[in-house]
Amino acid sequence: MLTDEKLNMTMLCDFYELTMGSGYFQAGLQDRITYFDVFFRDVPDQGGFAICAGLEQLIQYLKDLHFSGEDIAYLRNRGMFPEEFLAFLRDFRFTGDIWAIPEGTPVFPQEPLLTVRAPAIQAQLIETFTLLTLNHQSLIATKANRICRAAQGRTVLEFGSRRAQGADGAIAGARAAYIGGCAGTACTISDQLYGVPAGGTMAHAWVQMFGSQLEAFETYCRMYPHNATLLVDTYNTLKSGVPDAIRAFDKVLKPLGIRKCGIRLDSGDISYLSQKARKMLDEAGWTECQISASNSLDEYIIRDLIMQGAKVDMFGVGERMITASSQPVFGGVYKLVAVEEADGSILPKIKVSENVGKITNPHFKKLWRIYDNATGKAEADYITLWNETIDESQPLELFDPHATWKRKIYTDFTAKPLQVPVFEGGKLVYESPSLKDIQAYCREQIDALWAEVKRFENPHNYYVDLSQTLWDVKQSLLQTQAGV
Amino acid sequence: MLTDEKLNMTMLCDFYELTMGSGYFQAGLQDRITYFDVFFRDVPDQGGFAICAGLEQLIQYLKDLHFSGEDIAYLRNRGMFPEEFLAFLRDFRFTGDIWAIPEGTPVFPQEPLLTVRAPAIQAQLIETFTLLTLNHQSLIATKANRICRAAQGRTVLEFGSRRAQGADGAIAGARAAYIGGCAGTACTISDQLYGVPAGGTMAHAWVQMFGSQLEAFETYCRMYPHNATLLVDTYNTLKSGVPDAIRAFDKVLKPLGIRKCGIRLDSGDISYLSQKARKMLDEAGWTECQISASNSLDEYIIRDLIMQGAKVDMFGVGERMITASSQPVFGGVYKLVAVEEADGSILPKIKVSENVGKITNPHFKKLWRIYDNATGKAEADYITLWNETIDESQPLELFDPHATWKRKIYTDFTAKPLQVPVFEGGKLVYESPSLKDIQAYCREQIDALWAEVKRFENPHNYYVDLSQTLWDVKQSLLQTQAGV
Repeated sequence: MLTDEKLNMTMLCDFYELTMGSGYFQAGLQDRITYFDVFFRDVPDQGGFAICAGLEQLIQYLKDLHFSGEDIAYLRNRGMFPEEFLAFLRDFRFTGDIWAIPEGTPVFPQEPLLTVRAPAIQAQLIETFTLLTLNHQSLIATKANRICRAAQGRTVLEFGSRRAQGADGAIAGARAAYIGGCAGTACTISDQLYGVPAGGTMAHAWVQMFGSQLEAFETYCRMYPHNATLLVDTYNTLKSGVPDAIRAFDKVLKPLGIRKCGIRLDSGDISYLSQKARKMLDEAGWTECQISASNSLDEYIIRDLIMQGAKVDMFGVGERMITASSQPVFGGVYKLVAVEEADGSILPKIKVSENVGKITNPHFKKLWRIYDNATGKAEADYITLWNETIDESQPLELFDPHATWKRKIYTDFTAKPLQVPVFEGGKLVYESPSLKDIQAYCREQIDALWAEVKRFENPHNYYVDLSQTLWDVKQSLLQTQAGV
Repeated sequence: MLTDEKLNMTMLCDFYELTMGSGYFQAGLQDRITYFDVFFRDVPDQGGFAICAGLEQLIQYLKDLHFSGEDIAYLRNRGMFPEEFLAFLRDFRFTGDIWAIPEGTPVFPQEPLLTVRAPAIQAQLIETFTLLTLNHQSLIATKANRICRAAQGRTVLEFGSRRAQGADGAIAGARAAYIGGCAGTACTISDQLYGVPAGGTMAHAWVQMFGSQLEAFETYCRMYPHNATLLVDTYNTLKSGVPDAIRAFDKVLKPLGIRKCGIRLDSGDISYLSQKARKMLDEAGWTECQISASNSLDEYIIRDLIMQGAKVDMFGVGERMITASSQPVFGGVYKLVAVEEADGSILPKIKVSENVGKITNPHFKKLWRIYDNATGKAEADYITLWNETIDESQPLELFDPHATWKRKIYTDFTAKPLQVPVFEGGKLVYESPSLKDIQAYCREQIDALWAEVKRFENPHNYYVDLSQTLWDVKQSLLQTQAGV
């Protein structure tokens, strides 16, 4: 949304990207080619994998990247940037290369979701928006996917706009939720902009606006006979809500020969109420009436409701999905991994840390997913230097980068590169799939994961291994840096 | 941001607002005057109060409320809205009245933050954006205020854009964080749009781009001698980071006579490192060098750091503030409280619930804050019917609406109405204060709260009481509804 052509997001950057940019410019380093990786360190909710999303909005942003006259005026007004730098910004465009993992792909910690190769000043400037977009949509796609998997094939709808963290949280959030598996959203503008199917029927206020609940229900059935989902908990769900709904269906829908309709439960004990309501509806002959439920749902509550025999066909999930409330941050980072020398050779860079988990994987790299040909399942991800190749006709030995004695040999496998080229020399070379196709691809890729990786509790730690060559480069850099 | 005039947010509505809107239209109810309240039920993080924010963006949205030709075309395409309704939407504008509590005011559960009086169809349509905006900014202002209070007067900066939930999460989030007490942000566009002071110096990449850390530091000091805050943890904070910073200050700043500078710690044990660094800086004569710290900070960590004697002058707070990660939802709701009859009389409405805490306070109301004249402190909030007055010359008896035997009599008090008129008949009658003034007002209003309300653990439950008349109306409606 915010990458809409009407709105220039170039200034959505951390101010240090401008101070550094001006610094690179003044130091003559602005054209030095740098490589940055986006990666994350932990899967939210202690899950086994995340879903990456947000690339399409990042592409929009990069296509539109430029400083307007107003932007330059603002910067001049800050009194800390030389005129030469401001003049340079006037013609500033993104001219670099980008490789990225397509949206909807299951991804794992430490692997490069996206790699930027660009002049230092450009690569630095896009840091904030790149992270913000990928972090946000990956967070929501990952959470939505957990919730949809908990629903075991039942429909899940995204209902959370009113509790989203800002307009874009709602709009792009609904898009990401759809990628993760939701069937639709309540957010109208997400349908209009992105084609996320939007729907909805009534709030409590509708029921309160009429002389009686029955009148409210009958009126709604007459106006929307093919989309009549009645909210039955305004007063008392079982005592008056469901009975009035049945009366309205009998009076308005039955004569029209319509069998499909719905009720929605928005409070109380969903397990108990849905089973009682199901019985009442069935006994009244409304066996095709669907029961929707909402009210602070998440993957755990949905799993429990299903285990307890709740008769719910459709879950409306609000705040806990649109904010990923159990862990509302996707911690993607953006780290320098290499710089190019004047002669074109690539010099790897590493960021050390007292915290071992925070040490980066240096160098310009390539990421592969190893599929077992017999089962079609993803067995491991494998990170090599950019110019390494994999001979699928030979056994491939992978080892744990931390416990190097843990080794496993793969035969009869397919090694698929996960990143695809998105920009080449500033030119967009990637066409985003339709949102529907992204959702289908996501489902299919998750099917290729072993069930052990998909468990909510203590999922199997999927392997993300380094090639021997990359591992050696990393060790050697660590030895050098340790002396600094 | 998203309420920028370039971007029409009218379609950021839940789809049910359109199905209900069309329903009201077809039922001839579209002009029926309704009253809706925005209120919340629980303070995030079990705090004693929240800070309301977001009104200015809501005003922008309401001023701009209209359906474009594209919007109408989208709705027509949905095939469920009659042409008469679409024609009606073409001239749709907000013509109602709005009263709201000014931004930056400490607020409490159950009280109306905002009241809408408008034709049903209008009041219903603005539900989602109204809630989204107030919920988001109130959430972040409340969290930022907790963090700033924990810092006990030390500077707190908002650093979280990259982890925000979408662009608007970052941009409006920085605005809300400033209202809550932050001195500034890293988010450049929030400065450009809203005047939240933006600043920043360098990332690790700057240090890595040069031949050595010392060269990186010296270069930065030369370029920004008056704003030289050096990031000292790229390699080893105490072994090379602080010593190189001191060398750079000595070489570049000292000859210029500059004493003010800074270092930033972004990893490791901030308490230990800051004390060691302070000692090294002081011994080298850089007593005016400020120490900034960042790295997954929140109110609890900041409180602990200060208790442990950390020598930090400035805290940069990221993801935990910009997403309010400990509780990332502000649960404001939007409920029908009254409708107007044809004769202009106001008919109160109530939403009952099996959960007592979810029962609404009916009717068109007025909200007062009772200040003790002797201390200037806020003693209680008091909700009356819209046409009640308070005689400050007489003792005022308040009682707990749930435990009505708990009573307290106030004398020598001032009763200040908290809501101010914002729109009258669709016309904006309110001028938003400057952001700086909102921040100052917020600080001043929090000073008027007793310390017991401001505690993090088990804060005093501030009184929000109902007048006897309002209480009677509510009881009587509950009796009637119980029979439905």
